[in-house]
Amino acid sequence: SLPSAKNTNTTNRSPDAILNLVQGDPTVFEPYWRNQGDKCTLLISGSDFMSYYSDCENICWFLQPQLADAIRNIHRDVGNAVLDGRHIVIGAGSTQLFQAAVYALSSPAGPEPISVVSAAPYYSRYPEEIEFLSSGLYKWGGDANTFDKDGPYIEVVNSPNNPDGTSRDAVVNRSEGRLIHDCAYYWPHYTPITGAADHNVMLFTLSKCTGHAGSRIGWAIVKDIEVAKKMIKFVEFNSLGVCKESQLRAAKILETISNEYSNLGCTKTANFFEYGQRLMAERWRKLREVIKRSKVFSLPEYPKECCNFSGEFMESHPAFAWLQSKGNMDAEKLLRSHKMMGKGGKYFGVDSKYARVSVVGREEDFNLLLERLWAIKGEETE
Amino acid sequence: SLPSAKNTNTTNRSPDAILNLVQGDPTVFEPYWRNQGDKCTLLISGSDFMSYYSDCENICWFLQPQLADAIRNIHRDVGNAVLDGRHIVIGAGSTQLFQAAVYALSSPAGPEPISVVSAAPYYSRYPEEIEFLSSGLYKWGGDANTFDKDGPYIEVVNSPNNPDGTSRDAVVNRSEGRLIHDCAYYWPHYTPITGAADHNVMLFTLSKCTGHAGSRIGWAIVKDIEVAKKMIKFVEFNSLGVCKESQLRAAKILETISNEYSNLGCTKTANFFEYGQRLMAERWRKLREVIKRSKVFSLPEYPKECCNFSGEFMESHPAFAWLQSKGNMDAEKLLRSHKMMGKGGKYFGVDSKYARVSVVGREEDFNLLLERLWAIKGEETE
Repeated sequence: SLPSAKNTNTTNRSPDAILNLVQGDPTVFEPYWRNQGDKCTLLISGSDFMSYYSDCENICWFLQPQLADAIRNIHRDVGNAVLDGRHIVIGAGSTQLFQAAVYALSSPAGPEPISVVSAAPYYSRYPEEIEFLSSGLYKWGGDANTFDKDGPYIEVVNSPNNPDGTSRDAVVNRSEGRLIHDCAYYWPHYTPITGAADHNVMLFTLSKCTGHAGSRIGWAIVKDIEVAKKMIKFVEFNSLGVCKESQLRAAKILETISNEYSNLGCTKTANFFEYGQRLMAERWRKLREVIKRSKVFSLPEYPKECCNFSGEFMESHPAFAWLQSKGNMDAEKLLRSHKMMGKGGKYFGVDSKYARVSVVGREEDFNLLLERLWAIKGEETE
Repeated sequence: SLPSAKNTNTTNRSPDAILNLVQGDPTVFEPYWRNQGDKCTLLISGSDFMSYYSDCENICWFLQPQLADAIRNIHRDVGNAVLDGRHIVIGAGSTQLFQAAVYALSSPAGPEPISVVSAAPYYSRYPEEIEFLSSGLYKWGGDANTFDKDGPYIEVVNSPNNPDGTSRDAVVNRSEGRLIHDCAYYWPHYTPITGAADHNVMLFTLSKCTGHAGSRIGWAIVKDIEVAKKMIKFVEFNSLGVCKESQLRAAKILETISNEYSNLGCTKTANFFEYGQRLMAERWRKLREVIKRSKVFSLPEYPKECCNFSGEFMESHPAFAWLQSKGNMDAEKLLRSHKMMGKGGKYFGVDSKYARVSVVGREEDFNLLLERLWAIKGEETE
């Protein structure tokens, strides 16, 4: 029988309703934050933070100092990134910062637009974000695995990778390469923390760290001050800074987690990342159990590695399941015919036998995913 | 003697400190909001608004319904814009929405980039924002007064205009023109409201309306649903929506103003716009008194018009003073030699005998501006 799904919150939607698993809306963490009560309630009075400016002493003049502190503290607690001597640039999610980084690494303009590449399967928004303004500074160069153009290029290394959850290094490795490391998922609930990432430009986002996607807060950790300055210029041109309210909320939420570490009297079970690790491990255990019996789909396997944060050997539990059709069918269509919407492989630069579905939605949606995947299996064996 | 300046909050800065009046940081309204006490305090708990989505029924899926309501109500109260049957698109300030509008009106790409023009003196950020990504969709076309290229073009009409405070209409007026109306300053504290603006694309921003620049909330009022959809696509590509916290704050702040109108027991003096009108009128009275005796600078004159909102004849009281050097000197340098930083005419596409200074800063800065302008006058007559 289907593991535990039937015992949990039942859905009150119609059995014919389509289950949308296209976006990785990280609402899985809502119950955790609800249980925190008033500890992370944000209160802002009418006259607070009216100015464009946050900190005129900082090159990133629109970064609230309390958020900068909270970011340094959370990385120190988790041990997933080197911050000493680095510059923090804040943005409207890592979406804006990805574009800021591409702008910074492609300015001033060369004789032709610089190619931006990423190894397939790559995050489907990279090509969209690179191409939509037809910039003369940069252009989408496709799959990094097959990129063979001479001259400067930008490679985006997304590790752990969206959509397939794998750990990654740069693949082009030529002297004129400029690298952006998208580390959105390099947090203990998704993957073992095997060391402090130490790259020229690293992108993080609150959406994937704590689940607060609605706040649109991302941060870049940047080695070279000139690159940081150009990224700041981008955010200035693009949106004249980043809203203070969500910066303050992000600071509050991150501080709540850091306080759990500094508070020795706090029980281990209360910690957000440990909670998240258990939750994601449990979801993946259920998902793998369903998929194991499936004649239709398979899932990638992830190696067990020692997580420096938890001190335990564990495998990755990505925010998305990267389904592969065993029969080389169109995986997105196959899901659709069973009332599930995923995102097909072609959006990520690979074969349509793959499709990505979110596993970080609300519990009822995750359980419905399990039920419907189980039902496909049933059908095949009838 | 210098009118009232000496009786007000004294500055505790060194007399040699440079007075920065380059940006229009609208902190003038801080005391008003401080006096509102808890009425507009925002409270958000840790698990609120975690999703990317705000309203899946709305084409602008990242717009919080309470903000959409608050925007409709404030325009109804003030009577400065037609909203019936229009679409609201939310953005990170009007900065992001200006770029979204230009993208929407230039997509899909034509055979060459479309020219974006605005009558000089034009807002100095327009050329910067248009040019920084070297888009193939659009390019900066300069002063609309001298634009004579055939074919489609985009004209930005900024009315009241930043930097010079004038009311404006489109100047190119050709059949292939596409218009963006930047109405950031079309509020009663800056200018008489002579009617409800009714244009294809109108941009507004909380920064200039209530002074909450730190919230980075702007909105566009758009007639054509296809244009609105492209603008929404831009905000999606650019930042995956707009942060919920600042949307909620904007809604709260705007509701506070609207409630003053619906509350019949409320005294007139409590109303934000009437307060703002008096405050700005008083600042301009003092400024004109200083400038009247100046042999160095002059100011533009604005016609008295009937304001439908207040029911009174009044002239404009812009957020910036547009100073002209009587002796055709470089106005920015002249200010600088008297320890004031303004923004010179060349940034706005006109002669350097002009310079723009903010008159919406904190009271001590405004008073220091008066003192220093007065001192120049003194020097000249010695």
